Amino acid sequence: MVELIHQYVDESRLRKDIEYTAGFGALSDCKGNGRTVLTGTDANRDARQYFVDRLEDAGFGVRVDAVGNIAGRWEPNGIDSDADPVAVGSHLDSVVEGGIFDGVLGVYAGLESVRAMQDAGMRPTHPIEVVAFTEEEGGRFSDGVLGSSVASGNTAPDTALAIEDDTGVTLAEALEQIGFRGSGVVDALAWDTWLELHIEQGTRLEATGVPVGIVTSITGTVRSHVNIVGEADHAGATSMQNRRDALAAASELTLAVESIANDVVSTTSETAVATVGQHTVKPNSINVIPGQVHLGIDIRDVETDAIDEIVRRIRSRIDHIEAEREVCITYSQEYEIEPSKMSSRCIEETEAAAARVGTETLKLHSGAGHDTMQLTDVTDVGMLFAPSIDGVSHSPLERTTWADCTEGTKVLCQTLGKLARSS
Amino acid sequence: MVELIHQYVDESRLRKDIEYTAGFGALSDCKGNGRTVLTGTDANRDARQYFVDRLEDAGFGVRVDAVGNIAGRWEPNGIDSDADPVAVGSHLDSVVEGGIFDGVLGVYAGLESVRAMQDAGMRPTHPIEVVAFTEEEGGRFSDGVLGSSVASGNTAPDTALAIEDDTGVTLAEALEQIGFRGSGVVDALAWDTWLELHIEQGTRLEATGVPVGIVTSITGTVRSHVNIVGEADHAGATSMQNRRDALAAASELTLAVESIANDVVSTTSETAVATVGQHTVKPNSINVIPGQVHLGIDIRDVETDAIDEIVRRIRSRIDHIEAEREVCITYSQEYEIEPSKMSSRCIEETEAAAARVGTETLKLHSGAGHDTMQLTDVTDVGMLFAPSIDGVSHSPLERTTWADCTEGTKVLCQTLGKLARSS
Repeated sequence: MVELIHQYVDESRLRKDIEYTAGFGALSDCKGNGRTVLTGTDANRDARQYFVDRLEDAGFGVRVDAVGNIAGRWEPNGIDSDADPVAVGSHLDSVVEGGIFDGVLGVYAGLESVRAMQDAGMRPTHPIEVVAFTEEEGGRFSDGVLGSSVASGNTAPDTALAIEDDTGVTLAEALEQIGFRGSGVVDALAWDTWLELHIEQGTRLEATGVPVGIVTSITGTVRSHVNIVGEADHAGATSMQNRRDALAAASELTLAVESIANDVVSTTSETAVATVGQHTVKPNSINVIPGQVHLGIDIRDVETDAIDEIVRRIRSRIDHIEAEREVCITYSQEYEIEPSKMSSRCIEETEAAAARVGTETLKLHSGAGHDTMQLTDVTDVGMLFAPSIDGVSHSPLERTTWADCTEGTKVLCQTLGKLARSS
Repeated sequence: MVELIHQYVDESRLRKDIEYTAGFGALSDCKGNGRTVLTGTDANRDARQYFVDRLEDAGFGVRVDAVGNIAGRWEPNGIDSDADPVAVGSHLDSVVEGGIFDGVLGVYAGLESVRAMQDAGMRPTHPIEVVAFTEEEGGRFSDGVLGSSVASGNTAPDTALAIEDDTGVTLAEALEQIGFRGSGVVDALAWDTWLELHIEQGTRLEATGVPVGIVTSITGTVRSHVNIVGEADHAGATSMQNRRDALAAASELTLAVESIANDVVSTTSETAVATVGQHTVKPNSINVIPGQVHLGIDIRDVETDAIDEIVRRIRSRIDHIEAEREVCITYSQEYEIEPSKMSSRCIEETEAAAARVGTETLKLHSGAGHDTMQLTDVTDVGMLFAPSIDGVSHSPLERTTWADCTEGTKVLCQTLGKLARSS
């Protein structure tokens, strides 16, 4: 029976849930299909309520924890309720002007997997929890993966609840306002396993024509903030020799970051990336030599050593620029996440499940961060990717075909079914 | 008698006018002595009204033209009122958070020169006009030198009056509101000569210890707007090889502008400068590869050929970057002002005046634009500089010593006295 459960995955039922959710916070006047669903907004409340209603329709017990994480529990009569739950899910929030698949696919693929098991008449030996984590994108209260970091014990609930948005509203207040501030904590330490299906946000699946990716690791991330202070001066009255141009210094550093990353890719680790995503220039006036520039740098790889090498070389280049250009440069590093490896048990189970479904798979790493990386230290984790058309994400142009959404869900369902019936 | 008029220049009277004007739009909570006086604001009205009152105190006839230029005319009884007036002045507006000397020194040095002549009992043969031009800085309605471009006939009054600020208020409405929309036009074509004393905004006088600069030419200016469109993408999920990073392209261009300017300084024209003052990045988010950058470039020199060479080389570098990085770059040039030479008659008269005062002078060019450059084609023009401490301007830290303000005013007074008594 377990061998056939994936045949009960219903594409139209999955699609309806994703499309319905796409209506909450939907953007008008844009190409594609976009939405903005920040934590604690009306759109977020509506997306959460729709999910709770679908869980209840499917006979799940639903609880909302202190930071708004939603966990639906399927525990058919007669199973050992002390057995460790097998958990699955993702998130319902989006970036500003994001797409409709990021996060939402993983939540409803989890729910659809259970509905397929129910339709197939399968009886698990472990309870199954389908989870939507709070504030994965970090669009309002954090750098992201906030709900999952509470579930893993990496962040205390009170710490998370006290975080303020740009206008001084706390997470606690925002959740209260939409009626999704519960109690207790969804406890990932109690889980047998955790699985997440997510869109790839890259082009490797599309380029190889493979419908399902099996993630082997998620890159670590270091984010650096660099402030360069030169001297703002009159662009006409200051000779070329007398300048301490902060933007010229920032440009030199930006090109250095790019070339250091390219160099590390070709010598040390081909998965490494480094990006200068921000230049904030003061006064940013066409006729004034820039006096100050803030740069935001994002560095990632699956190997900590490669990240460390990039950081070391960037810092050495900063020292050089500081000396050469007589500017003051400060470097700070507020966000550091270690690379995380998926559990070999989960990788093997997803491979076996794909074989049962008859689907080709590709092993790959994730350059994007996900809730899953918060959970690697507390339970066995596995992650699947569905192909992103043109690799686009965090955009109304983000797209995955319904056939690929379904194929990923089938492999998820098979994996989940096997784990939930193991002894 | 004329030989001694500069001895009647009264430092305390000059200082009082500048310090009083510094109170209009004065900044609190800043180091130094700053003010914000945008055209048509209450602060601008107060600065204008104080000037009108001082002109009237000194027996000037005052008129305000259609675009708010203020001209006070000293025409003692019995002189030939058909004689071409000798004009002098500058502007009363400031940049946002600017200093207290820029413009204001020139206006009150002009008035103080006439008060000195009156005290000395000098009778001119030409009327003398002391002028404050509207919107020299261009902080609200324009790229600057607006009032003088109307006085020279380069801009029609109606064109100037229809310009809107960022909120849709026209210059006409703003002037009306502060009671400084007059009629007719201050006509620079009717002047015998025009003189302007201004702060240097550079360090050449300070470096050489010379109190008075005689300007030989004002640089021409070209301002370019460059838009670079790459592709915004996920900073983690997009490999180094698959990027079209608009900010890396912008950084390459920014360094190219700097090195081209340095090269032109050492080979073609040592007064050339080029500045990238603006990077406006989209989305400017630490974890997104920048999809779009706008650059603002300011290029200046006393030689048109050098400006042209810099522009040509920047454009060729743009073609190169566009091809190498597969980004789309558009280049536009909306602001072009030719270099302008001061009249040899005025240069000679200022040199002779400085000799009579007994002041050392330095000939130099102006890298900053001034109202004077709008007038070079319609009358004989001359310009004097007073030293800027540390070269700072457009800042609350802008400073010139009172002794230097006075020294410049003495040379201005001598020059003006000579010109106003010539036949």
